[in-house]
Amino acid sequence: MSDRPTGGSSGVRTFRVECGEGSYPVHVGLGTFEALPDLVTGSVPAHRYAVLCDDNVDRILGARLVDGLRGMAAEVIRLTFPAGEASKNRHEWARLTDSLLDAGLARDGAVIALGGGVTGDLAGFVAATFMRGVPLVYVPTSLLAMVDASIGGKTGLDTTHGKNLVGAFHPPRMVVTDPRLAVTLSREQRAEGLVEAVKHGAILDDGYLTHIEENIEATLGADVDALGAAVEGSVAIKTRVVSQDEREQGLRSVLNFGHTLGHAIEAASDFGLSHGAAVALGMVLEARLGEHLGVTESGTGDRLAGIVRRLGMRDRLPEAVEPEAVVTFTGSDKKARRGAPRYVLLERLGAIAAGEGWVHPVPLDVVRTVLREHVEAD
Amino acid sequence: MSDRPTGGSSGVRTFRVECGEGSYPVHVGLGTFEALPDLVTGSVPAHRYAVLCDDNVDRILGARLVDGLRGMAAEVIRLTFPAGEASKNRHEWARLTDSLLDAGLARDGAVIALGGGVTGDLAGFVAATFMRGVPLVYVPTSLLAMVDASIGGKTGLDTTHGKNLVGAFHPPRMVVTDPRLAVTLSREQRAEGLVEAVKHGAILDDGYLTHIEENIEATLGADVDALGAAVEGSVAIKTRVVSQDEREQGLRSVLNFGHTLGHAIEAASDFGLSHGAAVALGMVLEARLGEHLGVTESGTGDRLAGIVRRLGMRDRLPEAVEPEAVVTFTGSDKKARRGAPRYVLLERLGAIAAGEGWVHPVPLDVVRTVLREHVEAD
Repeated sequence: MSDRPTGGSSGVRTFRVECGEGSYPVHVGLGTFEALPDLVTGSVPAHRYAVLCDDNVDRILGARLVDGLRGMAAEVIRLTFPAGEASKNRHEWARLTDSLLDAGLARDGAVIALGGGVTGDLAGFVAATFMRGVPLVYVPTSLLAMVDASIGGKTGLDTTHGKNLVGAFHPPRMVVTDPRLAVTLSREQRAEGLVEAVKHGAILDDGYLTHIEENIEATLGADVDALGAAVEGSVAIKTRVVSQDEREQGLRSVLNFGHTLGHAIEAASDFGLSHGAAVALGMVLEARLGEHLGVTESGTGDRLAGIVRRLGMRDRLPEAVEPEAVVTFTGSDKKARRGAPRYVLLERLGAIAAGEGWVHPVPLDVVRTVLREHVEAD
Repeated sequence: MSDRPTGGSSGVRTFRVECGEGSYPVHVGLGTFEALPDLVTGSVPAHRYAVLCDDNVDRILGARLVDGLRGMAAEVIRLTFPAGEASKNRHEWARLTDSLLDAGLARDGAVIALGGGVTGDLAGFVAATFMRGVPLVYVPTSLLAMVDASIGGKTGLDTTHGKNLVGAFHPPRMVVTDPRLAVTLSREQRAEGLVEAVKHGAILDDGYLTHIEENIEATLGADVDALGAAVEGSVAIKTRVVSQDEREQGLRSVLNFGHTLGHAIEAASDFGLSHGAAVALGMVLEARLGEHLGVTESGTGDRLAGIVRRLGMRDRLPEAVEPEAVVTFTGSDKKARRGAPRYVLLERLGAIAAGEGWVHPVPLDVVRTVLREHVEAD
């Protein structure tokens, strides 16, 4: 381990995210899950709490949280939905909202989102729109949600047109992150989370990237101190970026590094590649794009490719994914302006190339060329 | 006419509403509708504009606005929905959102809501949730929306459980209010709008209330100067209140005067009474409630009853509406806390009784008694 902050049992670190309505704390520490009923009832008082989680998380953690809250004499509503991205739709949102109305949740209630990114998006949108917004507490259970989705206040649903096309900014009142919950995840799920940690290092902190690289095996292997350090390091970076630019008018867009191609690859693979694997590959290919344009330091793509392979992921486009389909999907990206996809490009690892508000329009031909050069040869 | 500001053709008055994200202007003036394409393209630049209005408003004003915008070389999408509260539901929201996605609206688009309160709520919620929020311009066409719904950033949909149970705060970028549009409304529609103007005077400005009273016939009769003065006076009061308390944590709740009983009466009449008529009656009965409790100056209910009758509305509960049903509905009010309905009570006309954060819990028995004493004898 390097001298980075560790997530040892020594205590809880609290980061603050500035947002339009003030700020909210992100409490990170091993064992915070046990402290949750205390934290929630103390800091986010409500007449009733609605715990929303998917059926998998419910089996593992749902009863513990609900019992803990009831032990504090809180009234609790417990609602579940099927695990998986397919639940992130308007129908499930309407069903959960109606169930909360049936159960008597009112404006003086609060929602606790217990789960990964899908839960944060879905339960978050329920909270954002319930009687024009009730307080939200987010308890991320996946490593990916701990280092990424839990910070920033984005909520959303998918439609047949694409992902997150309906949604709202609804900053949580509090985020409670217990890296120990990542121990029970699969190695692959931890790898998914590490992709975003790698991204945080790649765009803003080469030292942190090196730390992640050195501890990759320990983190994938569920070493709690390594997990704690990765979560703390990424939360520190992401809270800093989001605090400076909640609504993604400028700096926040640097967090999209790897995501323009990542989203397009995910879609072009018909979601055969996981989100993490697609973003990992997207980072490698966007680094190569930057090198091709002469913006990014030579060798950057190779180093990222090495890290991505150690995460057990591909660094080249699978043969089954058509480069042309990827190019087409980049044009329908939510961040596209006037139809031209825009890319966050690295100057070198740990530093973003400034561009126009941190993004660079890149001609489709250049994208096409780079993609074709990096198709996997089986 | 008194010495209140007039809405004469002399010019446009601009009020500003402070909100979490900054502030937005409310431009009020005869003829601003003609200036709309200029105002919108100048102050809310967008790649594409989506004009959303109901089919009635579309026939009268839709083409004029769309042509005006296209005359400024703007790309315009025009979408309509059936007029009436029944359109304010999740299905219509999803249909409009999908139509905007089909038409290629992206994050760099903007929504123009052209219509009354239903349109503001529905199109506003579309804008609030489209790709986590796109800019909204609100152009109120009913007197009620001009003096009330257009200011404050509330958007929402109805569910089978009740009105506005799903929604979001999404402040418009700009409100453009042309009181001349109220000339083509029916006398009854103008009376609906005046109810909220009466409320503004009743809670915060006895002088304005007197002005409204003195000009009631001219305003109902569509005198443009009287309309302009009523709109300006109410916009001045509402923008001041909302600027102090956007999220209804305190002062903004005074705007609910007449609405706790009003909403319950509207529901108990199975929406046989219009919203305006129900709120008018609600104001009279809440004044009488305050008098019964010794909080409100004696005679207040009588003076409000006189004004309400001059608006062509009832000042007593129709025989067909069960007092007990009204009492039950007050318990399910969105603003109820721990099941106890809370009332905004007047101290006297032009002044609110402070209470706890401007609201008073009132025992159901007292409400029941006052309602029973004021049933219409046919």
